[in-house]
Amino acid sequence: MKISCLQENLAKGLSVVSRLVSSRGTLEILSHILLSTENGRLKLSATNLEIGVNYKVGGKVEEEGSVTVPARLFNELITQLPEGKINLETDKNNLLVKSGNYESKINGLSSDDFPLIPKNKNKKSFTISSSEFKDAINIVSFSSALDEARPVLAGVLFSIKKDKLTLAATDSYRLAEKVINISGGEKDTEAIVPTRSLLELSRVIGDSDREISVFIDENQIMFENDDFEFTSRLVEGKFPDYKQIIPIESETKAKVSVSNFLKIIKVAALFSGETAGSINLKVSSKGKINAESSSSQYGDSSASCEAVVEGKDIEIVFNSKYIIDVLNNLSGKDIEISFTDKLNPGVLKVSGDKSYVYVIMPLRA
Amino acid sequence: MKISCLQENLAKGLSVVSRLVSSRGTLEILSHILLSTENGRLKLSATNLEIGVNYKVGGKVEEEGSVTVPARLFNELITQLPEGKINLETDKNNLLVKSGNYESKINGLSSDDFPLIPKNKNKKSFTISSSEFKDAINIVSFSSALDEARPVLAGVLFSIKKDKLTLAATDSYRLAEKVINISGGEKDTEAIVPTRSLLELSRVIGDSDREISVFIDENQIMFENDDFEFTSRLVEGKFPDYKQIIPIESETKAKVSVSNFLKIIKVAALFSGETAGSINLKVSSKGKINAESSSSQYGDSSASCEAVVEGKDIEIVFNSKYIIDVLNNLSGKDIEISFTDKLNPGVLKVSGDKSYVYVIMPLRA
Repeated sequence: MKISCLQENLAKGLSVVSRLVSSRGTLEILSHILLSTENGRLKLSATNLEIGVNYKVGGKVEEEGSVTVPARLFNELITQLPEGKINLETDKNNLLVKSGNYESKINGLSSDDFPLIPKNKNKKSFTISSSEFKDAINIVSFSSALDEARPVLAGVLFSIKKDKLTLAATDSYRLAEKVINISGGEKDTEAIVPTRSLLELSRVIGDSDREISVFIDENQIMFENDDFEFTSRLVEGKFPDYKQIIPIESETKAKVSVSNFLKIIKVAALFSGETAGSINLKVSSKGKINAESSSSQYGDSSASCEAVVEGKDIEIVFNSKYIIDVLNNLSGKDIEISFTDKLNPGVLKVSGDKSYVYVIMPLRA
Repeated sequence: MKISCLQENLAKGLSVVSRLVSSRGTLEILSHILLSTENGRLKLSATNLEIGVNYKVGGKVEEEGSVTVPARLFNELITQLPEGKINLETDKNNLLVKSGNYESKINGLSSDDFPLIPKNKNKKSFTISSSEFKDAINIVSFSSALDEARPVLAGVLFSIKKDKLTLAATDSYRLAEKVINISGGEKDTEAIVPTRSLLELSRVIGDSDREISVFIDENQIMFENDDFEFTSRLVEGKFPDYKQIIPIESETKAKVSVSNFLKIIKVAALFSGETAGSINLKVSSKGKINAESSSSQYGDSSASCEAVVEGKDIEIVFNSKYIIDVLNNLSGKDIEISFTDKLNPGVLKVSGDKSYVYVIMPLRA
């Protein structure tokens, strides 16, 4: 392999793929990045066996070929080199890196030993806008379970129906659902994608605004645009039938700005120490939401903000963490929260946006 | 106690003092901040028994008094409150915090139980410029030993002689010395200040540009200006007689820009894995410095930069970490490095500045 490319492009590509590489694994080759030439470009590949990513960097290919090099070392070296042209050339399993007065030889491994990142391009499913998709990942994925005790809850459900993709995640205490438009959805299908994979994908997408093509088969999902291919395994199992727990009717509705609401919840959360984040919300038809908490250790607190309230007064107890999580992802917006009674879930929507819904189970007072 | 102050001022003060507070200690009171009134201002005090700091915040005192509150909780609460006026009022050992629609009661402890932060204002030693002093701390302290095996090496030597303060630190592999001007140094003295204390002091000084008064007695040193009082214990023992190891003569001198030199050293350091950072420097009278390294595991590297060289060619081995440490603190400058031979220390100075010297022991090739 013999190729030249710009330091700034290579450094950007490495910052994306080298995140996937674990330096603690037992297999040395998994701490490496695969460099290869493809259609006149340099392809950087990394995998942790659950996720695989190919990222393409523009360059001038003089000789086709491939090699693997330690990800951390190669990334740090390229970061240090001055801007401008870098020459990369293989010498058996080693990589020569030259740029101006800098000349390094990195000990690599044969590309034959690098795990294959599967491509399942037979079933073209649909295309989506990368920015809408990234937003959807961000406002849904935090509702997933963090532990893997029930693997389906550590994933996000993808439901494709006609021209809509619905993303849903729940840890059984709260639930987030977001619907976005897709093009070319040929047949309805469902898949559960590990949340960890989606968070990595969100970073790989970065600020790219190219459309993304999505391919789903039995065991894998692939996201692709002109810059990258990102493959993840799917989670086996059945996602809970969550639709039934979303309340349809409500007795109380409150419209409030995210920034005001977040501040009073955060202050109340500070005083909810030994009650595991539990705070008391009072929604008053006089146009006010009050957040209270009390702790024998720390003291107590009460704070209120203005709200446009319709319906009955209500007092209900929530885990403040679940409210803070969603508000942190909706900054600058107005929201509507609706309640039936203190035993049933609260429902949070963004004002003027029917595509997103967030449901929180109340705690017993 | 009854006092009002601005959220922005109180938050700034708390960000300074609450860093000192450990939440892991066994004594609950040490996780608290002492609030008290002093000369019409609010005084925030924190201590970890090695360092004590008092920080003063402007306010309107309606009633004198004092109380202690948990540092972390109080800091987080004040950070969340909106900008503008905050009312603080004690109720026995509790503190009521009111601001707009926010009302909290924090469980505190009696201020009688808070450790006294000693003041030793009898011996006024000298005053220094806060910005010069902070710079001096930053370019000297990193040369201290990190572990406490020899406590004097985990400190910085303060030598006061007439109108000069000399700061010196060494971990026995390298040495940094900086001289700054002082006013009013009444008598020559020496003291060793824990490096940890100085790094905290540097943060307390922040961007303050007021002169600092320094008071030294047998066991303690105090730094004071209108905003704060900072007290640290001193290290007992005798600092090594370091002056003798600074070479006076040299056979080779090289003048180089910090940014160019730092880049070639960092690249060489990447390939020095199993040799604990050791790199080979070649200074050539042809106007070049070359940094090389080689590792059976990673590969090898060679990089050079331009330099103005006087005297003989030399080849010498250094631990790259000790060069990177100092260059990281001298960005944007030109430096002069001088050498006698490969067995004797290298000496680094900032071009046109006689107040700073950095000495590095070479490694055996």
